[in-house]
Amino acid sequence: MRILGIDCGSRVTGYGVIEAEGRSRRSVGFGAIRIPANKELAERLCLVADGLDEVLKRFHPDEAAIEDVFTRKNPRSAFVLAHVRGAAMLSAARAGLPVASYTPAQVKSSVVGFGNADKGQVRRMVKVLLGVQGELKPLDISDALAVAYCHANLRDAGRRGG
Amino acid sequence: MRILGIDCGSRVTGYGVIEAEGRSRRSVGFGAIRIPANKELAERLCLVADGLDEVLKRFHPDEAAIEDVFTRKNPRSAFVLAHVRGAAMLSAARAGLPVASYTPAQVKSSVVGFGNADKGQVRRMVKVLLGVQGELKPLDISDALAVAYCHANLRDAGRRGG
Repeated sequence: MRILGIDCGSRVTGYGVIEAEGRSRRSVGFGAIRIPANKELAERLCLVADGLDEVLKRFHPDEAAIEDVFTRKNPRSAFVLAHVRGAAMLSAARAGLPVASYTPAQVKSSVVGFGNADKGQVRRMVKVLLGVQGELKPLDISDALAVAYCHANLRDAGRRGG
Repeated sequence: MRILGIDCGSRVTGYGVIEAEGRSRRSVGFGAIRIPANKELAERLCLVADGLDEVLKRFHPDEAAIEDVFTRKNPRSAFVLAHVRGAAMLSAARAGLPVASYTPAQVKSSVVGFGNADKGQVRRMVKVLLGVQGELKPLDISDALAVAYCHANLRDAGRRGG
């Protein structure tokens, strides 16, 4: 089973693909889709969707998981981010993948063991748990791998479609 | 010049296509994409995108205009709506259309003459201004025609991409 994890940001959308078999999980590929800040929103949505379409074509994942971004402190940026997240979910859904959604606390608990771990801890654990060599930068990439890992563990209990 | 107006709702997305030539504006077509409330978000995004792709194929508009939904009172529903709006903007942008964004006050001012007109007033004026015979129901349809009309009048001054 291949899982695509997606972490949407307003300037970078991270993705990570993992292979989950029984209790084993390993990273298959990861990267970042960078969106120039000066582009108009509609154009940025196209760049994210085009980038994810490439990832879907290259890695053929079976399911997708995406982090919930509802609880952001800045409502305006959360609102813009929700557009990007909508475009990302649409790409995965149109490729026939079910899309599961997890809160940051669920992702952190699953990877680090407690819900308020910091991003550095998540990154270190992701590297160990998924056997990643080398750097995972920017953090959007380790967050994407983390949500894929979370889905591998919680997929039967995971909230769908949020 | 053909303009596609889009009004996104969580259960209904209205669309309206108008032809603008000089100072003349007339309705070419309109309708509503209905989304069953019990569907998962990713599936609802697909339905909106598929519906708009059909509209784009049928009417071949040159530009798109969409109402801003930032100022909703309920942050959770505005957040969900932003996903739908992202999917709608993506459909238009991928078809090569520039996508302009207008606030509700801009749309109402343009159609009725003042920014806090009610939806019934907008509907009555849209029918007169665009020569629409018969009913415009649900209100999402008259709102979609209204944002297309607004764009026809303000397109040089309109804020892009918001």
